Amino acid sequence: MVKIAENRYGKSRVRLVRVKRQGNWHELHEWTVQVLLSGDFASCFTEGDNSKILPTDTMKNTVYSVARTSSAACIEDFAGELVDLFLKRNPQLDRVEVNVSESPWERIVSGGRAQPAGFIQSSSELRTTKVSSKRDGTIGVVSGLDNLVVLKTSNSAFTGYIKDSLTTLPETRDRLFGTAVSANWTYSSANLAFPALRDAVRNLLLATFAEHKSESVQHTLYAMARRVLEQIPEVKDVQLTMPNKHCLLVDLSRFGQDNPNEIFVPTDEPHGFIEARVTRE
Amino acid sequence: MVKIAENRYGKSRVRLVRVKRQGNWHELHEWTVQVLLSGDFASCFTEGDNSKILPTDTMKNTVYSVARTSSAACIEDFAGELVDLFLKRNPQLDRVEVNVSESPWERIVSGGRAQPAGFIQSSSELRTTKVSSKRDGTIGVVSGLDNLVVLKTSNSAFTGYIKDSLTTLPETRDRLFGTAVSANWTYSSANLAFPALRDAVRNLLLATFAEHKSESVQHTLYAMARRVLEQIPEVKDVQLTMPNKHCLLVDLSRFGQDNPNEIFVPTDEPHGFIEARVTRE
Amino acid sequence: MVKIAENRYGKSRVRLVRVKRQGNWHELHEWTVQVLLSGDFASCFTEGDNSKILPTDTMKNTVYSVARTSSAACIEDFAGELVDLFLKRNPQLDRVEVNVSESPWERIVSGGRAQPAGFIQSSSELRTTKVSSKRDGTIGVVSGLDNLVVLKTSNSAFTGYIKDSLTTLPETRDRLFGTAVSANWTYSSANLAFPALRDAVRNLLLATFAEHKSESVQHTLYAMARRVLEQIPEVKDVQLTMPNKHCLLVDLSRFGQDNPNEIFVPTDEPHGFIEARVTRE
Amino acid sequence: MVKIAENRYGKSRVRLVRVKRQGNWHELHEWTVQVLLSGDFASCFTEGDNSKILPTDTMKNTVYSVARTSSAACIEDFAGELVDLFLKRNPQLDRVEVNVSESPWERIVSGGRAQPAGFIQSSSELRTTKVSSKRDGTIGVVSGLDNLVVLKTSNSAFTGYIKDSLTTLPETRDRLFGTAVSANWTYSSANLAFPALRDAVRNLLLATFAEHKSESVQHTLYAMARRVLEQIPEVKDVQLTMPNKHCLLVDLSRFGQDNPNEIFVPTDEPHGFIEARVTRE
Repeated sequence: MVKIAENRYGKSRVRLVRVKRQGNWHELHEWTVQVLLSGDFASCFTEGDNSKILPTDTMKNTVYSVARTSSAACIEDFAGELVDLFLKRNPQLDRVEVNVSESPWERIVSGGRAQPAGFIQSSSELRTTKVSSKRDGTIGVVSGLDNLVVLKTSNSAFTGYIKDSLTTLPETRDRLFGTAVSANWTYSSANLAFPALRDAVRNLLLATFAEHKSESVQHTLYAMARRVLEQIPEVKDVQLTMPNKHCLLVDLSRFGQDNPNEIFVPTDEPHGFIEARVTRE
Repeated sequence: MVKIAENRYGKSRVRLVRVKRQGNWHELHEWTVQVLLSGDFASCFTEGDNSKILPTDTMKNTVYSVARTSSAACIEDFAGELVDLFLKRNPQLDRVEVNVSESPWERIVSGGRAQPAGFIQSSSELRTTKVSSKRDGTIGVVSGLDNLVVLKTSNSAFTGYIKDSLTTLPETRDRLFGTAVSANWTYSSANLAFPALRDAVRNLLLATFAEHKSESVQHTLYAMARRVLEQIPEVKDVQLTMPNKHCLLVDLSRFGQDNPNEIFVPTDEPHGFIEARVTRE
Repeated sequence: MVKIAENRYGKSRVRLVRVKRQGNWHELHEWTVQVLLSGDFASCFTEGDNSKILPTDTMKNTVYSVARTSSAACIEDFAGELVDLFLKRNPQLDRVEVNVSESPWERIVSGGRAQPAGFIQSSSELRTTKVSSKRDGTIGVVSGLDNLVVLKTSNSAFTGYIKDSLTTLPETRDRLFGTAVSANWTYSSANLAFPALRDAVRNLLLATFAEHKSESVQHTLYAMARRVLEQIPEVKDVQLTMPNKHCLLVDLSRFGQDNPNEIFVPTDEPHGFIEARVTRE
Repeated sequence: MVKIAENRYGKSRVRLVRVKRQGNWHELHEWTVQVLLSGDFASCFTEGDNSKILPTDTMKNTVYSVARTSSAACIEDFAGELVDLFLKRNPQLDRVEVNVSESPWERIVSGGRAQPAGFIQSSSELRTTKVSSKRDGTIGVVSGLDNLVVLKTSNSAFTGYIKDSLTTLPETRDRLFGTAVSANWTYSSANLAFPALRDAVRNLLLATFAEHKSESVQHTLYAMARRVLEQIPEVKDVQLTMPNKHCLLVDLSRFGQDNPNEIFVPTDEPHGFIEARVTRE
């Protein structure tokens, strides 16, 4: 005999653009939503009984309907509204999770003036949040950012590591350190001023990355997470994934040239992968 | 005070092509490897002490060195060799995980004959495995496949689901059902005839998908997983992710035409997301 | 003063799935269509006058409407129907081009039997066609394939090339030769048995790639194109793009190991780029 | 008999990062280079004679060697140096084309201060150039930008177009207009202050997009190109490709809600495709 150990289902990549207008001055947001529901759906799997199934098409409709009535100004609040509504309307659910990612749009500036209704997608960095809630009322808000691409050209070393018969990497006190940071941090509450906190977290991550005297990716990752935890009491833990996007020094000696840490080949593969979650003790 | 709750690091996307030659008859494999190490690396994070750190560059070298000496004929055995070696050579490690994915190559057939040394990449489907081992000797082998793109044009219905004020989806007893299956199954042992088992699992997944009278994606997903568990005793559980790649019937009535389930728009987004893990009871 | 030197517009990525049913036996096609129109649209650009503009949304509707009534069994015939219809209905057009690409689906085979209504996407190779027609009646059909990924492990050399002060590549009489072929060939007529011709062209490209004693990518590219032109009188010219997807021999001597052309690193970048068009004299 | 009608070959995706250091203050550039050579290579194709072939591996080496000695501050000047060098060293060539794209990096700002050696990849927009030169000395510089993603929420209409039996699109005086601009402009000379000109062109494109009262994508495209030609005498022509990334108004009336141009679904496919080249008369 077999049984269902875990299951969830939902709708992914529900995309929406929302325009709020105050006269000629417009606000623009682009959000991509994923809804994931968990509950006792065993009979659907085993019997083909759909009587407890909310169609994923209805989840999509719900996202659009709520977007129209919502006054949420950030993805955390919008996700929270959706989670509450799905739980309230669907007693068959044990747990609802809503993930929202935001593509950043900024105003076009022309002639020194910010345009009231013209926008540019300023970056491929994404703002993310995961809001989840259980039937018993516990709620969790984990926000983050994805694809924060940064590189530092000083204060990065890698020495003192294990050497064995398969080691070829030379030690260096001066290397390039590039990565695409993916960060997730857990908030202590679902009622916070999320946009200001997001800005504060991001600024601390960036500043620490830039200023840290790095002995390794791990060393800098930890400094970044620690600084967020030390400065922002509303954050309970920080998880960082920082692939090491290697920049390899080109050997120009074959052509009679030196290369004093000036010309590098950036490579996508293979790449180092470093991940840690740092919490309060 | 803060602490490291979890951490791991390693090397991703270490790619290799291996050619085995028996006279003019060549065998070709293309594997992409990820190595992930866990252990007590706290001093690296907190102090910048790299004395316990095996560089990810050395992991890459290890993959290539082992590839040369290995007699492994499948990704499971190759990953197992790597896991063993990393654990043996690195006492600082608690756990090693090696993920390998294989891109399928088949022989070019020309003039009715299989070419001895000419190959075609037959599909974008991937064969995958994750082999992990802890210091205490426990070892796990989870194999899988990714991006198995299938579609059935009959025996797929979706009716009897919840209707509410946000429902617009019509019920249907005859729809297209397309998905890109991602599957992972856990083996009961690390010493098995993996290639034959992989073929058997894949054939059962495919046959069940094609033949099942589907009342929902969940219904078919469960039938696929159950059939594998019933037929293959070496498999302990099966996890399937089956996004619903919707094919929407085009409304041609606006042009005075009917559309008897013939012309559809395949869409990538939004898409249903269905995931479950099925185990033996 | 400024003027419009060239312009065209249209609709891209109009996707459709077509299911033809003969009892329980179904046929499945997935096509992606692009429509491109050229004509005198100057007043639209300069004055904002849309009176000669067929909306791209209508082009999309046209594709779906024609798909329902068409009896075309291949992308060439379907594209031809669309081209004719756009020209006929829109006297403001000078030229219409329709590009169609087909994603290959094959029947799932289970228990030795081909499934009547279960399909698998067998490859990421695409079948393509470009059919274009001018107001004066000239019509052109260029068909092709994209992303035909092949690799040969013998009969590939690269020697005798220019050496200069920046040369580091060693000569070799035995290398791997991998590429993702993109091919386009021009037919001599718009009324041909396109599916059989496509199969014949593809088989000749594959067989020649596998069997050729290659002195360079260029050498093999030419042999492939020439063989098509020699064997298939309905083809007027063949254009091939064959990036050299390098497989680099791993230097294992640093670890005291040899590497007799067995372990390679496949790389995506940088890559050689070789392109030529071969015609009848 | 067959012959080679056209051919070219080269190296693609040669990536480099260059760091220039003035004390602690660093400059960072990331460039991706493609080299394409044309000439009489017939014997290579037909005979396997490589005696006139400069290996693509040597092209890669050349890029790195020149990057070390070059004082070029922009991609146009760097591409120009490469073109000159390849032509000078390789008498067998008729024509050399070098394409360079630049990924933008900006300084991280922390505590109000620009970091001297910490950078963030600010956008996925690319700066591009194509410099080509023939044996006879003619040289061309075409610069551009790619993936400039913009959207305007006012002053965009689409009315007055052709209606026929396949029209379903409603006219609108108020729609969202989103696109990912790809632009290429031809310079009148190879000796210009390219960075300042690039900034000027980009600012004009952006300002015009934001401010234009648009009757169609074509209408705005032309206004953008014309403004560049009118304001910047060093530009001879402007080619713009502006896919219409449709934002579809969601029909909320099914749920008893209005939608006063507020909630949209952004879609990637199908999409309008509009392209034109505008020149001086």
